[in-house]
Amino acid sequence: MISDFVPQTHVKGYFITKNKQILKNKNGKDYHSLKLQDESGIIDAKVWAFHTAIEPYQSEQVVYVEGEVTLFLDQPQLNIFKIRPAKEGEYDLAALIPHTNKDIAKLEEELYKYIDIVQDADMKRLLETIFLDEQTHKKFFTKPAAKTIHHAYLSGLLEHSITMTQIGVFLSNLYEHANKDLVITGCLLHDIGKIDELSGFPENEYTDAGQLLGHIVLGTNRVALEISKLDGFNPDVANFILHILISHHGEQQYGSPEVPKSIEAMIVHLADYTDSRLKMFEEILTAAKDAKYTGFNKILNRNIRNTGYSPHL
Amino acid sequence: MISDFVPQTHVKGYFITKNKQILKNKNGKDYHSLKLQDESGIIDAKVWAFHTAIEPYQSEQVVYVEGEVTLFLDQPQLNIFKIRPAKEGEYDLAALIPHTNKDIAKLEEELYKYIDIVQDADMKRLLETIFLDEQTHKKFFTKPAAKTIHHAYLSGLLEHSITMTQIGVFLSNLYEHANKDLVITGCLLHDIGKIDELSGFPENEYTDAGQLLGHIVLGTNRVALEISKLDGFNPDVANFILHILISHHGEQQYGSPEVPKSIEAMIVHLADYTDSRLKMFEEILTAAKDAKYTGFNKILNRNIRNTGYSPHL
Amino acid sequence: MISDFVPQTHVKGYFITKNKQILKNKNGKDYHSLKLQDESGIIDAKVWAFHTAIEPYQSEQVVYVEGEVTLFLDQPQLNIFKIRPAKEGEYDLAALIPHTNKDIAKLEEELYKYIDIVQDADMKRLLETIFLDEQTHKKFFTKPAAKTIHHAYLSGLLEHSITMTQIGVFLSNLYEHANKDLVITGCLLHDIGKIDELSGFPENEYTDAGQLLGHIVLGTNRVALEISKLDGFNPDVANFILHILISHHGEQQYGSPEVPKSIEAMIVHLADYTDSRLKMFEEILTAAKDAKYTGFNKILNRNIRNTGYSPHL
Amino acid sequence: MISDFVPQTHVKGYFITKNKQILKNKNGKDYHSLKLQDESGIIDAKVWAFHTAIEPYQSEQVVYVEGEVTLFLDQPQLNIFKIRPAKEGEYDLAALIPHTNKDIAKLEEELYKYIDIVQDADMKRLLETIFLDEQTHKKFFTKPAAKTIHHAYLSGLLEHSITMTQIGVFLSNLYEHANKDLVITGCLLHDIGKIDELSGFPENEYTDAGQLLGHIVLGTNRVALEISKLDGFNPDVANFILHILISHHGEQQYGSPEVPKSIEAMIVHLADYTDSRLKMFEEILTAAKDAKYTGFNKILNRNIRNTGYSPHL
Amino acid sequence: MISDFVPQTHVKGYFITKNKQILKNKNGKDYHSLKLQDESGIIDAKVWAFHTAIEPYQSEQVVYVEGEVTLFLDQPQLNIFKIRPAKEGEYDLAALIPHTNKDIAKLEEELYKYIDIVQDADMKRLLETIFLDEQTHKKFFTKPAAKTIHHAYLSGLLEHSITMTQIGVFLSNLYEHANKDLVITGCLLHDIGKIDELSGFPENEYTDAGQLLGHIVLGTNRVALEISKLDGFNPDVANFILHILISHHGEQQYGSPEVPKSIEAMIVHLADYTDSRLKMFEEILTAAKDAKYTGFNKILNRNIRNTGYSPHL
Amino acid sequence: MISDFVPQTHVKGYFITKNKQILKNKNGKDYHSLKLQDESGIIDAKVWAFHTAIEPYQSEQVVYVEGEVTLFLDQPQLNIFKIRPAKEGEYDLAALIPHTNKDIAKLEEELYKYIDIVQDADMKRLLETIFLDEQTHKKFFTKPAAKTIHHAYLSGLLEHSITMTQIGVFLSNLYEHANKDLVITGCLLHDIGKIDELSGFPENEYTDAGQLLGHIVLGTNRVALEISKLDGFNPDVANFILHILISHHGEQQYGSPEVPKSIEAMIVHLADYTDSRLKMFEEILTAAKDAKYTGFNKILNRNIRNTGYSPHL
Repeated sequence: MISDFVPQTHVKGYFITKNKQILKNKNGKDYHSLKLQDESGIIDAKVWAFHTAIEPYQSEQVVYVEGEVTLFLDQPQLNIFKIRPAKEGEYDLAALIPHTNKDIAKLEEELYKYIDIVQDADMKRLLETIFLDEQTHKKFFTKPAAKTIHHAYLSGLLEHSITMTQIGVFLSNLYEHANKDLVITGCLLHDIGKIDELSGFPENEYTDAGQLLGHIVLGTNRVALEISKLDGFNPDVANFILHILISHHGEQQYGSPEVPKSIEAMIVHLADYTDSRLKMFEEILTAAKDAKYTGFNKILNRNIRNTGYSPHL
Repeated sequence: MISDFVPQTHVKGYFITKNKQILKNKNGKDYHSLKLQDESGIIDAKVWAFHTAIEPYQSEQVVYVEGEVTLFLDQPQLNIFKIRPAKEGEYDLAALIPHTNKDIAKLEEELYKYIDIVQDADMKRLLETIFLDEQTHKKFFTKPAAKTIHHAYLSGLLEHSITMTQIGVFLSNLYEHANKDLVITGCLLHDIGKIDELSGFPENEYTDAGQLLGHIVLGTNRVALEISKLDGFNPDVANFILHILISHHGEQQYGSPEVPKSIEAMIVHLADYTDSRLKMFEEILTAAKDAKYTGFNKILNRNIRNTGYSPHL
Repeated sequence: MISDFVPQTHVKGYFITKNKQILKNKNGKDYHSLKLQDESGIIDAKVWAFHTAIEPYQSEQVVYVEGEVTLFLDQPQLNIFKIRPAKEGEYDLAALIPHTNKDIAKLEEELYKYIDIVQDADMKRLLETIFLDEQTHKKFFTKPAAKTIHHAYLSGLLEHSITMTQIGVFLSNLYEHANKDLVITGCLLHDIGKIDELSGFPENEYTDAGQLLGHIVLGTNRVALEISKLDGFNPDVANFILHILISHHGEQQYGSPEVPKSIEAMIVHLADYTDSRLKMFEEILTAAKDAKYTGFNKILNRNIRNTGYSPHL
Repeated sequence: MISDFVPQTHVKGYFITKNKQILKNKNGKDYHSLKLQDESGIIDAKVWAFHTAIEPYQSEQVVYVEGEVTLFLDQPQLNIFKIRPAKEGEYDLAALIPHTNKDIAKLEEELYKYIDIVQDADMKRLLETIFLDEQTHKKFFTKPAAKTIHHAYLSGLLEHSITMTQIGVFLSNLYEHANKDLVITGCLLHDIGKIDELSGFPENEYTDAGQLLGHIVLGTNRVALEISKLDGFNPDVANFILHILISHHGEQQYGSPEVPKSIEAMIVHLADYTDSRLKMFEEILTAAKDAKYTGFNKILNRNIRNTGYSPHL
Repeated sequence: MISDFVPQTHVKGYFITKNKQILKNKNGKDYHSLKLQDESGIIDAKVWAFHTAIEPYQSEQVVYVEGEVTLFLDQPQLNIFKIRPAKEGEYDLAALIPHTNKDIAKLEEELYKYIDIVQDADMKRLLETIFLDEQTHKKFFTKPAAKTIHHAYLSGLLEHSITMTQIGVFLSNLYEHANKDLVITGCLLHDIGKIDELSGFPENEYTDAGQLLGHIVLGTNRVALEISKLDGFNPDVANFILHILISHHGEQQYGSPEVPKSIEAMIVHLADYTDSRLKMFEEILTAAKDAKYTGFNKILNRNIRNTGYSPHL
Repeated sequence: MISDFVPQTHVKGYFITKNKQILKNKNGKDYHSLKLQDESGIIDAKVWAFHTAIEPYQSEQVVYVEGEVTLFLDQPQLNIFKIRPAKEGEYDLAALIPHTNKDIAKLEEELYKYIDIVQDADMKRLLETIFLDEQTHKKFFTKPAAKTIHHAYLSGLLEHSITMTQIGVFLSNLYEHANKDLVITGCLLHDIGKIDELSGFPENEYTDAGQLLGHIVLGTNRVALEISKLDGFNPDVANFILHILISHHGEQQYGSPEVPKSIEAMIVHLADYTDSRLKMFEEILTAAKDAKYTGFNKILNRNIRNTGYSPHL
């Protein structure tokens, strides 16, 4: 897998091609610049010389590749000396796209279990309307929770939403005044706008609506529209749910037009913040394997210490 | 008028009562604490002694009052020695609630003129659907643009929206790439959520929905819902309009979930910011009358110099 | 109880006196200004007139009082017309100091349970050394977790530490790489410096060391000193524990000299942040009783909506 | 033109050379590294091989060039295979330096029109003294308004000052208390320090005085000196004008030693801010041509959506 | 002296009256509200009852007063029962205005010593031109260095400038590259604008020019004008001096249009910052006398510990 | 010396090798990438071709090198064509590691002089205990004061501590209330944690404890431990010293868990800040030699003007 590539070694395997460009080097000779992806990551690749082992191929295609891993400006790069389109049956598509390593069936079971727990009739029918809709269901089950930062893989949105609900329900039991129905509804729906914000795999880019409106507004609009179709929906409950959606980033400077003003909105925000931070730590530690320090991470602005690595233990 | 009250003078006139409380002084004697309002402002008032000139009255009622203006902890206060409910016909209600000093009919004319200018069919029918709806129309024509900061008076929202549109159209003509239809639509609709956020006069308080969702989300939901009812509405135009609404505060820390990403959204934001700042300067200068300095203003964080006052000129 | 006092009513009961001052009014007459406290809160009080019902009393003394509740500058105030030192046996001291409403015995049981769970021998003997020390144990069981903001009551530190450990252990089970022993040790010790930072009830003020060093440094010094006395303590484990203590506020601007750099330090910080925020919401909602909004809170910078209050439900 | 260059194509034309360096490649062979500029932009260029088509040339010289456009680290680069000094008459100098696309004569006319409008005798003679001075006039008519951000071209300062004055005058008419003479004087003079801050084309670099004092102080010093030479100049008017100059960046953190404290200073600041932002949007959209998104802009911290591009329209 | 006043005691002495107002109490009776000042501080005062001991007096007048010190809302207040204009000869004016406790003659000597040390002919004649000018000299020797924060007393500007120069010269000797002439010139002139910014005692208010331009610009204008009159002044030296003046607050957000870009400008900024901070600590500790903690100071945002107070020493 | 290297010239000399890597170029050929260091700086180096002049060598070894200086992406790089391990006696190790250019013996003398000046018995024995300990003494005399920013050379910590003490003592003499013993003790000990935070030369990297705890906490722990071993140490003095250590960065956002609350802590902070800023200016100006501007410095966020360079002088 790409995450295991070591400089100065030969590698081979199946990958998805991306961003193929035909460029010229300083001597005027053509070469190919492209990226290769599998479930474990992405690597820059080049085709410097053209001969019979370099067969015609396209961008966004599954290919079989052989090459040598090198370092260029401290980044790994693959110099390809064999490439051909893969034949069906040769490869496992699931191994080429990053995906959750949780059990999808179990996550689905959890989703229904939480909807079942909800007592309030309005909230329950809202959740059912949304999650039992075939299209929404499909998108919710496959989209990532982010473009790059955390849970940036197939079904990442589902996994994030379920883990968050677990945290939210746990916290609801610790404090007085917290309405568990509202917390569950808020957790399950808080990022529903992401099914419209991100285009999904393999591109996984922001959509036009995602760029212009963002998942907070897209989700709020979607839920408000669904509510407007449900007769007799309690208007207070509607306000409480929409308030949770718009406030879940916690502060205005992080994109929430209002701060959490109910204990349920605060719980949803804290559960979201907690899961996103700890998932980042987990992903970084997993990627760094046995290193004592994982290297400086720009988003977290720190170099994480792997406490599992201890020369004294 | 209240804004003209001078300490150590006797005054009389018609006012609206607010926040009436019956309290006890240190000697155990009852007294009344209340506020009186007219179009020019609000003043604390007290009834210290009860005799025949103090007739029974309620909160939120129009009354005739006589009293003396004093200073308490540097704030003016009215000690009432005569109060009675006003009789119909005695007073002019318009003089008791602060209101725009622009001509409403002319503002209405401007509104229709701008809707007329719009060429794009989708935008035009959206504007007509919203502004020709009787209820919306009525609210849009009477609500203030804010609770206290600027345009905090009857029809302030209408005045602010029209002035902003004038600025927006003027700027559209100065720069290439700006779509004037979008700018007009954005200016007229940018604060439409305020008709749901504020309760209107005489209370002029935030509604429950206003507290939980704010005018940016309330307006976005309202417009998104109207668009969903208009068959064949161009989805790009819909995104462009909603983007203007959510980005009009300019930065996330001021409550906009997205920053302005189109030139039209930037124009609407700048027109809004410009009108709100200059209206504050205008209101403060007007209130300060002939003073050389208007006194320190906490929101603007400065003490404004009245350049009209110049001992050397 | 003080939190139930209503203006313009007569009240009586047992209270602790604080901050007694003898002042002169404008007519040159002496009066007393003091505060009265019970488990539910604190109120300003005055003695305006001296007669036989006003017996001699001191500050920081339990007294029996009768008086009338009034409002002064919008704050409640008690005008005392009877006061005398209370006799032993007349009152219940526990009712005069705010305290946790959790069961102390159960919290103690939880503390030992968590120490039992810890597998690592070094961490276990550190925890036992600290929590089985008689003096430390006593302070840890009675000190508040803060001067005013949250858990500001008898045994608040114990309650906060246990709840946080519950959250920390729950989170440890959700993510890979998290060492549960470290999380438990970090949670139980993170605020241990508060036993030196605050003087405890009834004064509950910052100590000199608390002002100059703060609980983060005081706790770190205490734990470092204990570790230095334990032979053969693993130096990596020592660093990991001290790192958790100094980083638990999450960011430098909140007083942590380092940000959390291990997943265990991040979990402890998130558990601390979560419990402190949600406890504030809980306390504010409880204090506000049946109000729809709890009133603007300066520390949280928001007005909390009580979702339990819903006119439509 | 350089802005039209497409990778992997041959190009030829006239350009100005800049930053010529003679370097050695890894094989120890000399090559030339330089930049080429025309009115549309700047491109990195290299001369890799020397033969008869590579004639001797200097930096800051007009040359005729033929070469091939390539990409190096994602940036366009021109590999030159023919270069020679251009002969007079062969090329149009105006096409080699970026310049305003407004009509200079018309801008000049506007300048005089605004000076004419000014009624106040002091302000009028100050404006005439400055703008009718031959040297100042020449610099004001050719300098750019900035080094790179916006209006960074020949006569950019003139264009920016005139557009700003148009906006300022428009706003003066919308609000009470605004002295139009002061607004015009402030708009025309606000950036006068830039004629001393920037060296002008073709280098267009900060001068030593520009680095040490900046245009706000340079302009203030210049205007204060001119005023000191005008007998009987009203000292209040002098303060008002200088206040506008020093406050036009709006906030201290943007380099204004005082915030705008008069309505005229606020208008000048808002007109400046509005024109600078919208000109950036205009320039970015023009440069991006038909792209749906213009690409992430670091100064504006956003990716601008070209609303003119709509697949649905 | 006012700083020694103790509540519930009778006091008498000579003071300057300020802000006299005639108000009415709740019973409609007139009373006087005023302030009294001596060199040690300012106190609120009231005249509640009028009898023969209350003689006519004006604001900004020296008076003889007897009264009783009380506390009102935790602030000391003087209830006057005797007041009369003071006769010449009865009082020492110097004791009624706060002033430096350094020896003025010695400070003057230091000033001339530093001007003497300067070797550079241009800097020397600039300093002489400014400090030997009779009017400037007089103002520089009496003005305070600030309205309230530090050195807010007669000759405070002189004292601050001399102490700063001592620090600046000391630092110049510690580091290479520092031009001592420039540091001395910069230190002596850095706050010269304050002679125009503050009106001086007894009012000590901001002037109109001070409000609109501030001392950084006022000083820069003054020095630039003096330089323009000195034939053949080295233009680099002029830029270096003006740069020091405009950058001495260190950062743009503190009102400096440029940050210090020369080592001399950095030294002047650090000397200024150091003296202002330490003078504040000194003044606060002196005012707090023997207290262990001086009480929370809002500007420094901390409660200073008097290390001279130590129960263990 | 490396700092004197000019592109396109041949150089030779003795250096320390660092970070040696064996990589492959695009043609699959091995090359070496390494760094070379001497007392004046560090340079990237490459070995492109292997022949008899390229003898076997290791990382962190002293070698003799000949090569050519080139520019790669605007950074100097050394292409090596001769390298061999250096023989003992051929080179001067002191010339290969950056070091203070102050006289170490004189700095040592100053250290003892300051300890001698201290009157307080507790502080004196604490200083003696720490600085007379052989191991501590050795580390304190060789460690740098920082990894890169300032004083990043052999004995930099000693030099910084002594210069700071000079500044601190000078300031102590200028202001009342400052206890000189405390200032000296604070200055000498403020960065003592750096002997545990940095690994020292030649690597000069952060230690594990340095990453997790930082020098503020490491120093505080070390001093607290030493104090705990000194019988009868005055607990107030202990708090005052530890307070200085933890507050010396001045603000929480710079890593100090408490701000300076005593005048001695403020003096130590100001002396530290002043020496670190001015040493950076000095080092940058020295490195830039005769340049008019030193080039933009990212940490200081400015381009320093060398006032020694003046075409007019």
